[in-house]
Amino acid sequence: MSKSIFYHAGCSVCVSAEHDIVNLVGKDNVEVVNIGEATNRIPEAEQAGVKSVPALVAPNGNVLHINFGASMEDVKG
Amino acid sequence: MSKSIFYHAGCSVCVSAEHDIVNLVGKDNVEVVNIGEATNRIPEAEQAGVKSVPALVAPNGNVLHINFGASMEDVKG
Repeated sequence: MSKSIFYHAGCSVCVSAEHDIVNLVGKDNVEVVNIGEATNRIPEAEQAGVKSVPALVAPNGNVLHINFGASMEDVKG
Repeated sequence: MSKSIFYHAGCSVCVSAEHDIVNLVGKDNVEVVNIGEATNRIPEAEQAGVKSVPALVAPNGNVLHINFGASMEDVKG
């Protein structure tokens, strides 16, 4: 993959981080996924190594966990 | 300020995150500070709101804490 993927769950911490990340990386370089809404993408995020959101999966596959908003378990409800 | 500042302490988590951040944001857009060595910059980092490293201070002043490497207290020793 050539784009980064930013996973979040719609919380205020996530939204704030989203704006910062999009500004820093450029909106054309990052796909934003709200896994609070798009729950069908949770397995993909977990497989990528996302342990909490917000998180940014870099093009090289590394996962950068940003702050600590909500655990994956919380998002699953 | 127009550049982001990436603070780290030389740990392996930090160095890995550093490479990702520099790749994503672009090396001309981020100043990398190893506060494990440049301890004189710790007060500045704390004032910016850095609670742990690695952390990225965005140009708008927001602090993005990335993963959790070492607490500021640990770096101060």
